[in-house]
Amino acid sequence: MENRITSLFGVKYPVVQAGMVWCSGWRLAAAVSEAGGLGLIGAGSMYPEVLRDHIRKCRVATDRPFGVNVPLLYPDIQELMNIIAEEKVLIVFTSAGNPAVWTGWLKERGIKVAHVVANSKFALKAEASGVDAIVAEGFEAGGHNGREETTTFCLVPMICDLVKLPVIAAGGIGSGRAMAAAMALGAEGVQVGSAFAVAEESSAHERFKAKIIDASEGDTRLSMKKLVPVRLLKNEFSEAIKGAEARGATVDELSRLLGKGRARLGMFEGDTAQGELEIGQVSAMLNRIRPAGSILEEMIDEFNGVSEKLKRLYF
Amino acid sequence: MENRITSLFGVKYPVVQAGMVWCSGWRLAAAVSEAGGLGLIGAGSMYPEVLRDHIRKCRVATDRPFGVNVPLLYPDIQELMNIIAEEKVLIVFTSAGNPAVWTGWLKERGIKVAHVVANSKFALKAEASGVDAIVAEGFEAGGHNGREETTTFCLVPMICDLVKLPVIAAGGIGSGRAMAAAMALGAEGVQVGSAFAVAEESSAHERFKAKIIDASEGDTRLSMKKLVPVRLLKNEFSEAIKGAEARGATVDELSRLLGKGRARLGMFEGDTAQGELEIGQVSAMLNRIRPAGSILEEMIDEFNGVSEKLKRLYF
Repeated sequence: MENRITSLFGVKYPVVQAGMVWCSGWRLAAAVSEAGGLGLIGAGSMYPEVLRDHIRKCRVATDRPFGVNVPLLYPDIQELMNIIAEEKVLIVFTSAGNPAVWTGWLKERGIKVAHVVANSKFALKAEASGVDAIVAEGFEAGGHNGREETTTFCLVPMICDLVKLPVIAAGGIGSGRAMAAAMALGAEGVQVGSAFAVAEESSAHERFKAKIIDASEGDTRLSMKKLVPVRLLKNEFSEAIKGAEARGATVDELSRLLGKGRARLGMFEGDTAQGELEIGQVSAMLNRIRPAGSILEEMIDEFNGVSEKLKRLYF
Repeated sequence: MENRITSLFGVKYPVVQAGMVWCSGWRLAAAVSEAGGLGLIGAGSMYPEVLRDHIRKCRVATDRPFGVNVPLLYPDIQELMNIIAEEKVLIVFTSAGNPAVWTGWLKERGIKVAHVVANSKFALKAEASGVDAIVAEGFEAGGHNGREETTTFCLVPMICDLVKLPVIAAGGIGSGRAMAAAMALGAEGVQVGSAFAVAEESSAHERFKAKIIDASEGDTRLSMKKLVPVRLLKNEFSEAIKGAEARGATVDELSRLLGKGRARLGMFEGDTAQGELEIGQVSAMLNRIRPAGSILEEMIDEFNGVSEKLKRLYF
């Protein structure tokens, strides 16, 4: 099977491993790329020289295409982008910011660009700024999220109708069934976060992985809507935020409660009570830790099975 | 095509028109059933004798199967159920309540029962109480909704994995693409609300219909989570609720602000500023008023097209 996403990135399967702070270093990205998907190094949690090191190690580990995800809300963006260009990374996913700022710079350097959006307005903005593909990420996704709360089921067809570019669906996708559903909605690829956060090669702390595996339905919640909305796994910290929000806490109060370094504390250092644990709703369906390659392989097998089944559904 | 849902209800297409307060009287239900789907009279907004009248008129208008939706949170349930039995209605969808209370009573009278749930716990409860099918309704759906905020993309596969009964997906489904996606996720049928709320035969006020047609992405919001969560279209009333919630309003304050009869005021009487306007996220994709039969026909055509396309997606 070939489509615009497999051609654009030169991959076998149109499955992108989401760039995730504290989870997706070179080990995870290389494992996914080796298995035929597109691995992304998540630069959001990396100092510039750490990113350089991860890019180099990823290149040693795989000769297949991989990319870097850069959340545009972090500092040091110019330095990160310089390193990406110097190290001749060929694919960049940008997120959490204005696509008009960096797309031209990256494209001039021959880099393929995809931009992550949570609404139609930014999908149009991304298309106008010259990106090559759009990631449409629904409300159920982990981590940073849109204010409109539009779900994958609604967002993907809306954006597919609106833009000419190929669309990659994200949010709620951790299985071949969900991949088939996303493609029925018009997507040409999927971006998978949570399911790869619990891969063996993910750099998430073992206690964070264990907590994801344990998670049940309703255990994640879109938090801090007055600041930047982020989907978090329930723990002492997120309950404190919830309580503050129910009392009508101001932006300042929430900022103070959040403080600095919560994501690192929870996801990388393993303080699963007081840390910020970014994960999607699909965590309720994840129940074991295994190599990224097996996760991808099972997804593709299930996708093929579902496509086979849907063939027989006709009127 | 036949599956457990078409067989259970004796319909051509596994498409259920959701029972919707103030929208789905006999005209809409009969039109959907005549077109090959399953029409439901929404009893939630009806006095018992009004329901009897609607059932009788529906039977005159179509000799195909139709049903009644009974939200179990309203008063007069015993009277409504008596009328359903006296009038020999063969299909009942229950929602917003405990499935254990009425399922046995209905089944003893030879009535097929489906129950609407927003989480796995209630899906298991419904199965244990003896229902024939489960409607799994995601966060994006209009009207009353679950506290877990689980989206259709995540809820449907979770419930399909958990129960042996056939599952009908609801929430975010207003097109053939979405129907194909729901069936890829494991559903054997879909329940469609918003798309039929703007049908010609819907009893929604013309001003409410016009406001749905005008709605854009982000124009609905899950409101009143401290009372009973309900997805509403943005207007003066919902903004007042939002403001109160941001200030940390108590349950009592929200109840007073809500008052009585807001849904009737907005949806049936057409006060689109002060009324409660229940509609799903999919409203952003609805752009014209037309007969229910055309809506269903287009949905099935699109479904067939998507299934055809998915056939070619193989690895």
